[in-house]
Amino acid sequence: MMESIRIPCIFTIFGGTGDLTHRKLIPAIYNLTLEGLLHPGMMIVGVGRRPLSTEEYRDNLLASVMKHSRFPLRTDIWDRLKERIHYFRMNLSESEDFSSLKNWLDELDRTAGTQGNRLFYLSVAPTLFEPIVLNLHRFGMVTNQGAWQRVMIEKPFGRDLKSAAYLNQVIESVFPPENIFRIDHYLGKEMLRNLMVIRFGNALFESIWNSRYIENIQITAGETVGVETRAGYYEHSGALRDMLQSHLLQLLALVAMEPPISLDAKSIRDEKVKFLRSLLKMDDELLRSHIVRGQYGPGIMNGQTVRGYRQEKGIHPASNTETFIAMRILAGNFRWGGMPFYLRTGKRMPKKSTYVVMEFKSMPEILYFKEYKGMQPNLLEIHIQPKEGISLQFNAKKPGSGNEITTVTMDYCQNCDYESNSPESYERLIADALRNDQTLFASWEEIEASWSFVDNITRYWDKEAVDFPNYAPGTWGPPASDELLARYGHHWWNL
Amino acid sequence: MMESIRIPCIFTIFGGTGDLTHRKLIPAIYNLTLEGLLHPGMMIVGVGRRPLSTEEYRDNLLASVMKHSRFPLRTDIWDRLKERIHYFRMNLSESEDFSSLKNWLDELDRTAGTQGNRLFYLSVAPTLFEPIVLNLHRFGMVTNQGAWQRVMIEKPFGRDLKSAAYLNQVIESVFPPENIFRIDHYLGKEMLRNLMVIRFGNALFESIWNSRYIENIQITAGETVGVETRAGYYEHSGALRDMLQSHLLQLLALVAMEPPISLDAKSIRDEKVKFLRSLLKMDDELLRSHIVRGQYGPGIMNGQTVRGYRQEKGIHPASNTETFIAMRILAGNFRWGGMPFYLRTGKRMPKKSTYVVMEFKSMPEILYFKEYKGMQPNLLEIHIQPKEGISLQFNAKKPGSGNEITTVTMDYCQNCDYESNSPESYERLIADALRNDQTLFASWEEIEASWSFVDNITRYWDKEAVDFPNYAPGTWGPPASDELLARYGHHWWNL
Repeated sequence: MMESIRIPCIFTIFGGTGDLTHRKLIPAIYNLTLEGLLHPGMMIVGVGRRPLSTEEYRDNLLASVMKHSRFPLRTDIWDRLKERIHYFRMNLSESEDFSSLKNWLDELDRTAGTQGNRLFYLSVAPTLFEPIVLNLHRFGMVTNQGAWQRVMIEKPFGRDLKSAAYLNQVIESVFPPENIFRIDHYLGKEMLRNLMVIRFGNALFESIWNSRYIENIQITAGETVGVETRAGYYEHSGALRDMLQSHLLQLLALVAMEPPISLDAKSIRDEKVKFLRSLLKMDDELLRSHIVRGQYGPGIMNGQTVRGYRQEKGIHPASNTETFIAMRILAGNFRWGGMPFYLRTGKRMPKKSTYVVMEFKSMPEILYFKEYKGMQPNLLEIHIQPKEGISLQFNAKKPGSGNEITTVTMDYCQNCDYESNSPESYERLIADALRNDQTLFASWEEIEASWSFVDNITRYWDKEAVDFPNYAPGTWGPPASDELLARYGHHWWNL
Repeated sequence: MMESIRIPCIFTIFGGTGDLTHRKLIPAIYNLTLEGLLHPGMMIVGVGRRPLSTEEYRDNLLASVMKHSRFPLRTDIWDRLKERIHYFRMNLSESEDFSSLKNWLDELDRTAGTQGNRLFYLSVAPTLFEPIVLNLHRFGMVTNQGAWQRVMIEKPFGRDLKSAAYLNQVIESVFPPENIFRIDHYLGKEMLRNLMVIRFGNALFESIWNSRYIENIQITAGETVGVETRAGYYEHSGALRDMLQSHLLQLLALVAMEPPISLDAKSIRDEKVKFLRSLLKMDDELLRSHIVRGQYGPGIMNGQTVRGYRQEKGIHPASNTETFIAMRILAGNFRWGGMPFYLRTGKRMPKKSTYVVMEFKSMPEILYFKEYKGMQPNLLEIHIQPKEGISLQFNAKKPGSGNEITTVTMDYCQNCDYESNSPESYERLIADALRNDQTLFASWEEIEASWSFVDNITRYWDKEAVDFPNYAPGTWGPPASDELLARYGHHWWNL
């Protein structure tokens, strides 16, 4: 079991009436409480603009816990937890209100015995990150003395290297780096947390984890939904910034980094940064030929007529925002030299699933590879979501009197069992921030390296024309994505 | 699918009323017929001493097919098949009777159009192998001209190198080597047939199939039964001759041989022989310390009182026949140099199961192997029977908020599914002999190498005292078996 948190604090959520708070944060707090992992004196403060009494706020949250917790409601647990939840109404653009917040938190500290420890969670529009952080400083809510104050920041962390660096500088002017927890909720997913154990806890896997044995590595993150209600954000972000810069590059770094020298956060993050920096920089020719962007048009998906991206609510009718991206990239290190990584993510894909496929080299023209047509390569599949687990595809004799060969799969599924109930990312991430464990948060250096990689792509895209839409909903993106792999004798594994 | 047999013949079973014919051979013929794999003109002749009409013989076989076939009876198939089954009564010690057999088979040839092709199956006591073969020759039933005549011989093939060599010489004086099919029914088992595909049809497995990655390889063949009705044979054979000389060494050879240059029978058998010859010869000191023999005493197994071996019917009350053997052996080649193979087989074990375990090297003192207690090594398990399949044991993070590590298993089970219905060894072996495919039969050179290995052990045993019985029924043999592995920091994997 995870150690329980030994130090009490006030957990303050900016955006306390928002969607994330209802769907993820409070259910996570409830689950952690149920598991006995939180300090029993921890206070929770939701900050919002809406006029709500604490009583009303608690009732609203109860409804969300009942809807979103992975456990059935235990009223005894909730009744004790709700007493520690408060609502603080304020206008984030009023300095006055920050002053009141400070006094109110100080008072709560005294009555609740939380000793001045604060975890501020910024679940607000990115434009508010800077003013909130600066006001926390200005009104003395971040002292960095005796007690600790930490901040958790939702993504997006900037929209390019420049804006991210500026934001980071602002935050670091208030919080020391070790107290800044940059969230990439993918890092809290069970299978990402499992990746290091699988790689470094198994002599067998570590032995073959390199380009001598592996032909290519593919990462796919497919969503079936369109832009939904996120038009305002997504239209200025697109698949590259929204998914690839953060989730996919983080996942890739965990798959491909060198073994760290120890399991502490710094050693691990150092290896991730090292890997991200080792990605070969693409010139314009490679950016043209090795990156495919796409945007879904209107069409029929699972028997339903669906709009094209440009017809979605809140989207410009001539929008050139990409809803799909696929790429072939190489890393300049000895482990992976010359071996391609294929990354893709998109909306309106045929399947909602995120997975890694390690395709092993084949042995053409030897024994079975010579005698039988259509021998498949070995695949190690790491299923991130919705399925969580590992599969190994290999060749075996088909049972029966003949000599046919068939491709079969060994499976380990950690959430297929009806009893399984994987914790949500946010449970783990909140608990880690409370315990001061940075392992599953992105360091500034990682973010810097990934924006630097992404900026090179957007720089090129800005001068290249696109012909959108270019893929039908319910397909795996534009044909150019398949063609990219086909040029190298590969193909996407659509799991 | 397997190709069907294109050439008709007469399949003559010496021992046509015996247990093997009823339980295995005729059900196999029926199954192959049902699958459409046999030539529709193939004739089956059961030879026996008992006074039976062909009609009675067919009725008896029908009962056996209904009891032992893996398929439900289809009367249309049986009705057509039974017309081609005949019974020939004879006394195997009467030359006269062989003469009649010859004439009768010649006549059958003419009426059935089987063109003189003959497959003789010797399912009789080993002492009868020689006289039957010599009489087949003497009465002109083996011409080796135009038509083909083949012989299938059940084990045991001799009881030491000398007797085996003599038997082989007799048979080879009548049949050319390519027409002699020495049966080891283990070689017909689905998973043994699958082993080569798994090894050489998967780049991943082939890459790690050596002592750089593997710590040790274990082969276990456990039976829960005692000596049953086989006292007469077993008392003069024991576990070493009955199981190890044949099944275990054959299985080991398939697991450990070098890749053959092609998939034909000769290339494969050459590699098996090469491996068997590479087994390091043990001197008396090693024979004493690296081989453990055992005999079960009386005791309680699964709540039932069971007799000791010496109390079984037909067994000498001071018998020193071993019912258990375990050994540590090494091969003198680059692939396996220094890496131990552990073999064991026994009666009255806790479980009926045959399996191979490849235990991979661990990485002591690195990352998880340093931080966590009790990390288990990776295991590749090949389940031969009763379960058929492959499992891979590896370490993963235990799902949940904590950081615990747990050992999990990926499974591929080819007969766990209720729809699966693996063919019996004998189906495959009979079909292969009809198709003239020697791959799954032991060559003389293999038998020679395995007897040579075994003779070295019996030579030593003959001069060493034993203290039998030395293990209780329902245990994994005598303590010395566990101690043998413990001396090298290993332990048996009891699956």
